[in-house]
Amino acid sequence: MTIAIDAMGGENAPKKNIEGLSIFLNKNKSNNDFMIHLYGDKKLLEEEISKQKIKSDFIRIIHTDAVVSDEETPLTAIKNSKNTSMWNSINAQVDGEADISLSAGNTGVLFVISKMILKMMKDVSKPALAGLWPNQKGMSVVLDLGANIECNEKNLIDFSEMGAALYKSIFPEQKPFVSLLNIGSEEIKGTEVLKKTFSELKRLSNDTNFIFKGYIEANKIMRGECNVIVTDGFTGNIALKTAEGTAKFLTDNLKSSLTENIFSKISLIFSFFALKKFKSKLDPRKYNGAIFLGLNGPVVKSHGGTDSVGFYYSIDLCYRIIKGNLMHQIKNNLSHLDVEN
Amino acid sequence: MTIAIDAMGGENAPKKNIEGLSIFLNKNKSNNDFMIHLYGDKKLLEEEISKQKIKSDFIRIIHTDAVVSDEETPLTAIKNSKNTSMWNSINAQVDGEADISLSAGNTGVLFVISKMILKMMKDVSKPALAGLWPNQKGMSVVLDLGANIECNEKNLIDFSEMGAALYKSIFPEQKPFVSLLNIGSEEIKGTEVLKKTFSELKRLSNDTNFIFKGYIEANKIMRGECNVIVTDGFTGNIALKTAEGTAKFLTDNLKSSLTENIFSKISLIFSFFALKKFKSKLDPRKYNGAIFLGLNGPVVKSHGGTDSVGFYYSIDLCYRIIKGNLMHQIKNNLSHLDVEN
Repeated sequence: MTIAIDAMGGENAPKKNIEGLSIFLNKNKSNNDFMIHLYGDKKLLEEEISKQKIKSDFIRIIHTDAVVSDEETPLTAIKNSKNTSMWNSINAQVDGEADISLSAGNTGVLFVISKMILKMMKDVSKPALAGLWPNQKGMSVVLDLGANIECNEKNLIDFSEMGAALYKSIFPEQKPFVSLLNIGSEEIKGTEVLKKTFSELKRLSNDTNFIFKGYIEANKIMRGECNVIVTDGFTGNIALKTAEGTAKFLTDNLKSSLTENIFSKISLIFSFFALKKFKSKLDPRKYNGAIFLGLNGPVVKSHGGTDSVGFYYSIDLCYRIIKGNLMHQIKNNLSHLDVEN
Repeated sequence: MTIAIDAMGGENAPKKNIEGLSIFLNKNKSNNDFMIHLYGDKKLLEEEISKQKIKSDFIRIIHTDAVVSDEETPLTAIKNSKNTSMWNSINAQVDGEADISLSAGNTGVLFVISKMILKMMKDVSKPALAGLWPNQKGMSVVLDLGANIECNEKNLIDFSEMGAALYKSIFPEQKPFVSLLNIGSEEIKGTEVLKKTFSELKRLSNDTNFIFKGYIEANKIMRGECNVIVTDGFTGNIALKTAEGTAKFLTDNLKSSLTENIFSKISLIFSFFALKKFKSKLDPRKYNGAIFLGLNGPVVKSHGGTDSVGFYYSIDLCYRIIKGNLMHQIKNNLSHLDVEN
């Protein structure tokens, strides 16, 4: 399996990308089932690789001169981003050179050119952006996080099938629980689109590779009782950013409380390891990597501002997704819809 | 000014309601500009009042036999809830007996009968449920939190005017900043309804009693740079519950981290006061009380599960709203729309 990495995308690229790769290679010394193709400036990448003392038979550099800038807009991206490291790392899938593409670069551009290069899967009406969300028992998949502002029932059913396939590819041992995000748990609650999706998923429930659990309210996302949470891109984006803002507000206040006087500072000596564990469990870098679903090949978007550890987690996510045979799972799940329709 | 309280609504009523009242009376010993009318079972209320050793010239009990049950649905509420403590506490405004009504009872029923009894204000297309949201600088008003699943631009503009009036009535010294909740801050982002609302609010901006600040993303709600955040009831409800769920997830994990071993337990001795302050600042009881806006009289909904302290805060909110002359502020704000349309 081959992972194509846009080594020039994101803040502090290519330094953090190569450092993240170095962590990945160290953690996977005993595995020899992967190849990493790095797209970017050969000279710069070789410098970083030698700085990191990486010696691996499993990496290959494919030189590209150009990089997609942060200022590039989706409108002009198709014209301006040809032969950039991002473009070529996605195009590698068309050429059969790679199984998955990873970039920390410009999100809007990545989305547009991924769609253009890889094209949408037959029978998928809209692609979706899926993210990993921490919860009390581990993590869940939430989609769509912002690719589609408005969605109909066909879109939400596709998202359910694709989200379940993604979860299954990352956690193969479980048959995923899928829920629709709504403002109440009763069957009569919500928009017309949600009600139609609900009854269609209920009707399909004997044939799906997931267990449909009905509606979920937003305050229960993090309980961990549901593995895949399905919503439209507007709502998903609001929920994601509300959670981010709330977490930042709480941890900022906690930090300032615990450093405000000499006693609370002393307390930090005793709680150091406990707080470190707390912080580590909730470390957003562990959940770094949003997945574009619905194209003829998977594309993972790393957060642009993440560091090498965050980038490592997104490489690891790519590895797990391919090992879990995501594309096969998606096709398999969607085939149930074919039978029904 | 008179506050009409449904003393029988919510968990542990009327105990917590009267205890909350007792806190309110103690904190307002030097004020004599209010009357509290308590609606409920006279005998029960007198017992609680004597238990709390309340001796006040500012309270009056109006006996009612019946109570709205938690099982009552909005569909049958109008038939079944006549002459309940909730009904009569709202109806008091029609009779000119009260300026505001407060209940911790059944939300759906409260909403339906409030609309029925008080009726919608002229020119308001839909009523909204507004809540107080903690932020880095104090608190902001967020609406709609779930009264209207789908909203058009007229609704959102009404919500902006009413939300600004509410904020101004609670914090009279400030000209409120108003923003529309969206998935990006650029003018071109979002749904058609949001775009239309944006340009209309921009057009009106010379005449409004608030400063329109454009779009706000959900991760910035708690920064405190905006006082009134406007959205439809579906999105507002998702955001509110996501914030609740995230806060619970984080504080639960923090608690278990800080009690997991002997060292972290020792740390609690040193950080006790700092953590107490942290907890106090974020205490949800301080933000207890959602306000129904758009009716010919204000109705405040206390959380049903809150305790006496939470109920005290909702009584205090009623007091501040009436002192700040909410209804006048709303009419004044809406009159600008009349001029324009």
